[in-house]
Amino acid sequence: MDYSKKAIALHKKNKGKIEIGLKIPLKTIDDLSMAYTPGVGAVCMEIHKDKKKSFELTNRKNSVAIVCDGTAVLGLGDIGPEAGMPVMEGKSAIFKAFANVDAMPLCIKTKDTKEIIKFCKNIEPSFGGINLEDISAPRCFEILEVLEKELSIPVFHDDQDGTAIVVLAGLINACRASGKAMNDLRIVINGAGAAGIATARLLLAQGVKDILLLDSQGIIYKTRKGLNKFKKEIAQKTNKQNLKGGLVEAMVGMDVFIGVSKPGLVNAKMIKSMNADPIIFAMANPVPEVMPGIALKAGASVVGTGRSDFPNQINNALVFPGIFKGFIDNNVKTVTQKMKLKAAIALAYVIKKPNKNKILPSVTSQDAVKAIAQAIK
Amino acid sequence: MDYSKKAIALHKKNKGKIEIGLKIPLKTIDDLSMAYTPGVGAVCMEIHKDKKKSFELTNRKNSVAIVCDGTAVLGLGDIGPEAGMPVMEGKSAIFKAFANVDAMPLCIKTKDTKEIIKFCKNIEPSFGGINLEDISAPRCFEILEVLEKELSIPVFHDDQDGTAIVVLAGLINACRASGKAMNDLRIVINGAGAAGIATARLLLAQGVKDILLLDSQGIIYKTRKGLNKFKKEIAQKTNKQNLKGGLVEAMVGMDVFIGVSKPGLVNAKMIKSMNADPIIFAMANPVPEVMPGIALKAGASVVGTGRSDFPNQINNALVFPGIFKGFIDNNVKTVTQKMKLKAAIALAYVIKKPNKNKILPSVTSQDAVKAIAQAIK
Repeated sequence: MDYSKKAIALHKKNKGKIEIGLKIPLKTIDDLSMAYTPGVGAVCMEIHKDKKKSFELTNRKNSVAIVCDGTAVLGLGDIGPEAGMPVMEGKSAIFKAFANVDAMPLCIKTKDTKEIIKFCKNIEPSFGGINLEDISAPRCFEILEVLEKELSIPVFHDDQDGTAIVVLAGLINACRASGKAMNDLRIVINGAGAAGIATARLLLAQGVKDILLLDSQGIIYKTRKGLNKFKKEIAQKTNKQNLKGGLVEAMVGMDVFIGVSKPGLVNAKMIKSMNADPIIFAMANPVPEVMPGIALKAGASVVGTGRSDFPNQINNALVFPGIFKGFIDNNVKTVTQKMKLKAAIALAYVIKKPNKNKILPSVTSQDAVKAIAQAIK
Repeated sequence: MDYSKKAIALHKKNKGKIEIGLKIPLKTIDDLSMAYTPGVGAVCMEIHKDKKKSFELTNRKNSVAIVCDGTAVLGLGDIGPEAGMPVMEGKSAIFKAFANVDAMPLCIKTKDTKEIIKFCKNIEPSFGGINLEDISAPRCFEILEVLEKELSIPVFHDDQDGTAIVVLAGLINACRASGKAMNDLRIVINGAGAAGIATARLLLAQGVKDILLLDSQGIIYKTRKGLNKFKKEIAQKTNKQNLKGGLVEAMVGMDVFIGVSKPGLVNAKMIKSMNADPIIFAMANPVPEVMPGIALKAGASVVGTGRSDFPNQINNALVFPGIFKGFIDNNVKTVTQKMKLKAAIALAYVIKKPNKNKILPSVTSQDAVKAIAQAIK
């Protein structure tokens, strides 16, 4: 089904999707005198005496800033901050509907790494956490690294770790459904941007031993010229056989294909060159690297995409509401790799008996939020 | 009545005052497919083709950023961004309750003028307007000047122009109630920060001819050493007799006292030294420059304060919801002095027959919002 026209009509009619809601009545002089002057002055001074009280006396604890520079919005690329807003409002709406988290979209007019870092530092006093969103690689890695060190509220880049967590959860259940042992799998990841590199990192942390990562230039190997800092780093831990070549060469003899790249890059022949009963996660959006029908016919055992109109939707909307709920409920200051692993496992085990057509819960299910939030401790 | 304890309890119980509200349902896969991927992609591309559509397809048009650095919060001074948040949440709640405007509080961790300007420029794509708030003088003047020139959304510093508008409205009605002619009045303004200077500017624009402005060093005169740029500028247009001295000297023979300064600076003797039947606006908060009882006993004809527990509350909460509603409804890009004058007159004429005890509508009245919004064209 084509949602485009309906989506535009819906957005036009409602002028977006979110608004401010009031948690207190504001009708009488008495109401005003407590919510605003003169009563509010005493509340300010309580926080002035002890900054931590801002988490108790304002909405800060439950507030998340969604910070986006509009450079890598969905699969649409660098479309600018104004054009990124509908996605950020969508995330905000999902945050509220599924986890009761108040997330404010802030699409900003700068692509400068240092300036984005400064921006996030400046807004820290107003929020309980920061969700970086749709900021292109490799800037997103540096931004996240610096903020994780220098802020005292949790920072999470959904395109990196949200994707990594949902992929790991899906892979755990693809293995449970097909009887494969995850740590023996040979995995090819096509795409070495935010999602690809973070997924490789998380799979390595989970104990996967054999990963091949590709970018638009082909297979990443240690001695390849022109690799950025982050690709160099991941090259040390992947591609142990030092393979070279393109995606056709990379897929031969592999067990899993994870696509965070572009539509239509994979064909039946390439899938047939993989090991028997391969797992295919083709997550290019909205058109996957290979359509599920073709992949299944070519011998794939489990196929997932980013789409809601095929089985096995692998979408980070399954992750971000629950993970921030977990940060909030558990007063998390810094996000660790261990939390991400626990979140992935918790998400996987929401499904009691996974099968080929059901490796993840529906994005409308509340169970994922609860399970992930409880896993963060 | 002391609201402090009740206000703290209210804030603790509710964890602040505002949250995110949803304008659309988000329950089914269909809902998600329009609010989020895949449908939202088409909405993004509509805006990418024409940025102006962000005002139609997102909540941008109705969104205002309340930007505060925590340096001049109420009368509490430089208490920091965390401690400023209860006031900003209060403003947001008032914006929503009285004008259905969605205002997001952003208390930021920088006092650097250039950085605050940069911050506001960076958030422009996400908002339809910016309400600067509780930023101390003289930085606030420069910040507003630059942003008014360089942004294509309206920028309003409530402490400057919100105060100036409500004071002018109050003065118009004090004149209507007492039969005085405003342009003949001799006016002393005590306090030359954001509110004092903006009030002097607006009164001059309205045609008042004789204004004396004082800061903590006393009367401002053209040749006084060490005046900042903004005080120098206003010195050219005020104090034509080149008077020197303190507040005691300044008040002799004046018709109006406007206090945006500190508690208790004015006594009965000083009021008796003014012309007959003077108008006293003692707006220091929460304790005024002179208590109304003392002022009336000393011969004042009309007395206003910032407080809700005396007649004639002169509070900018009467102004900011309506003025932003007016900007939004009329697609205002730049705020002009003429708009401010029209807003003040509209606010004054909400009161059909002003009298000594009723020069302004109640801050809970919706009439002020409507009148001001309609006056902005």
